[in-house]
Amino acid sequence: MLLGSIEAGGTKFVCAIGDENYNIIESINFPTTNPKETLVKTINFFKKFPDLLSIGIASFGPIEVRKTEPNYGYITSTPKPGWRNTDFIGTIKEALDLPLFWTTDVNGSAYGEYSAYKEKKNNINSLVYYTIGTGIGAGVIIDNNFIGSEGHPEMGHIFVKHHPLDLNFKGICPYHGDCLEGLASGPTFKARLGVLGQNIPLSNSIWEIIAYYIAQAAIQATLTFRPQKIVIGGGVSSEKFLVKVRAQFKKLLNEYIAIKDLDNYIVMPLVSNNGSATRGNFALALEALNSR
Amino acid sequence: MLLGSIEAGGTKFVCAIGDENYNIIESINFPTTNPKETLVKTINFFKKFPDLLSIGIASFGPIEVRKTEPNYGYITSTPKPGWRNTDFIGTIKEALDLPLFWTTDVNGSAYGEYSAYKEKKNNINSLVYYTIGTGIGAGVIIDNNFIGSEGHPEMGHIFVKHHPLDLNFKGICPYHGDCLEGLASGPTFKARLGVLGQNIPLSNSIWEIIAYYIAQAAIQATLTFRPQKIVIGGGVSSEKFLVKVRAQFKKLLNEYIAIKDLDNYIVMPLVSNNGSATRGNFALALEALNSR
Repeated sequence: MLLGSIEAGGTKFVCAIGDENYNIIESINFPTTNPKETLVKTINFFKKFPDLLSIGIASFGPIEVRKTEPNYGYITSTPKPGWRNTDFIGTIKEALDLPLFWTTDVNGSAYGEYSAYKEKKNNINSLVYYTIGTGIGAGVIIDNNFIGSEGHPEMGHIFVKHHPLDLNFKGICPYHGDCLEGLASGPTFKARLGVLGQNIPLSNSIWEIIAYYIAQAAIQATLTFRPQKIVIGGGVSSEKFLVKVRAQFKKLLNEYIAIKDLDNYIVMPLVSNNGSATRGNFALALEALNSR
Repeated sequence: MLLGSIEAGGTKFVCAIGDENYNIIESINFPTTNPKETLVKTINFFKKFPDLLSIGIASFGPIEVRKTEPNYGYITSTPKPGWRNTDFIGTIKEALDLPLFWTTDVNGSAYGEYSAYKEKKNNINSLVYYTIGTGIGAGVIIDNNFIGSEGHPEMGHIFVKHHPLDLNFKGICPYHGDCLEGLASGPTFKARLGVLGQNIPLSNSIWEIIAYYIAQAAIQATLTFRPQKIVIGGGVSSEKFLVKVRAQFKKLLNEYIAIKDLDNYIVMPLVSNNGSATRGNFALALEALNSR
């Protein structure tokens, strides 16, 4: 059985073909240029596989996810040049008449993690996935469904309290200044210190500040959903960073509710090599196939 | 058809009998003393109605809502003297062998609002209800289900950014200091100004500060759930206060996502006379009956 995955990122596209056990058979990636060129490359890749049954698509956004809307399947009000109001699903559907599952990039990753825990016979029914990179996004799954009634979550843009040593940093979010993304996304390292985060050792106190904000996001997810897992991926995350996040989480939550095993609650992605999204897309492709 | 409602508050209990149209036939209220005395009064009230079919119970907490747990139906780690580890559902069940629906006080109110919108043929599938009073609590309904996997939400305790004119207020939450409840619940008026909120005119700038925090809660709910309605009840709320909340919401969200009709998005309870909880409990009693 051949399943397809499209990770449509703002910087690059990753397209992959896999089997029903989510093994990758072939994959390709190329930069995200204009919609026409990028979607033609995408379609040409999948056309090589006449036995392909369905595709899971996880896209940068904002996107329209309500099937009741006339622009379902579009990338909508994105600031990315040329991509505003792009009919992603319509274009793919016209070229490849297959069942498609359409969701956000971070929902794809969230679903990959959820499906990986399911495969491990972990009795999971709820998971929150954060990605911390160029921006901050989150996907939430409860009982196999994504959360988001009128649209997908945008939990990267919630407000948080400032770290006492970070009171004067105004944040870099063009919409909100000092929302979570404006205070704790990857580019904030350079905005504060003039140096990329990857070049700043974990011993630098800025990592405590970032951990303080991510801990608040984890507390918000905890008090809102009471989920079984909070997975934190993206370029800024690492196991050593999560040690700091857990410590701040514990201090800030102050045992208001009991989290039995914090080390297994706030965790790195289970799927290795950044593979959560591809795995999730394969699993969602299967969902699309089964719900035809 | 006779349905029962128990609003188990930390200060008083309200018990009611209603019909399938949620009309109240008889109700009683009494102070919350010790568990034995209070639950005996509750049981004696309902024993007068031999035709009673089921009861919806919305309780102060924290409570155990997971049916898989041995202490399902208990009030658990409450600071209220005498009530810690009270087997609420077991006690009621033993005296009155009826289907019971067990949830949090604020979920009861949330469900009452949800059911009232349904009755108005409003095509609603998602609603967030905040109560702002002695504390701050929230209930969330999506597709007829309450949100909260491992426990009920505690969204009153999320962190928010301080208002620029409120930087020095440490907050009053015994667990978190300056979480939402610590900054914006009813008792914070007295903590800041030495005067009860009900005696402070809306022209006082403290109301702008409180509105700033409640707007952040509404933004958090919006970016997390993308719900159709945010209802704000409780003693601190009023239509005039919500005018301030909407203004702050608009400014803080900064059109990051489109909210088509803000006046009908952040709203006062639809059910009049503080009746959301009783109505919700009747509706939940009906659910308990139908899902037997």
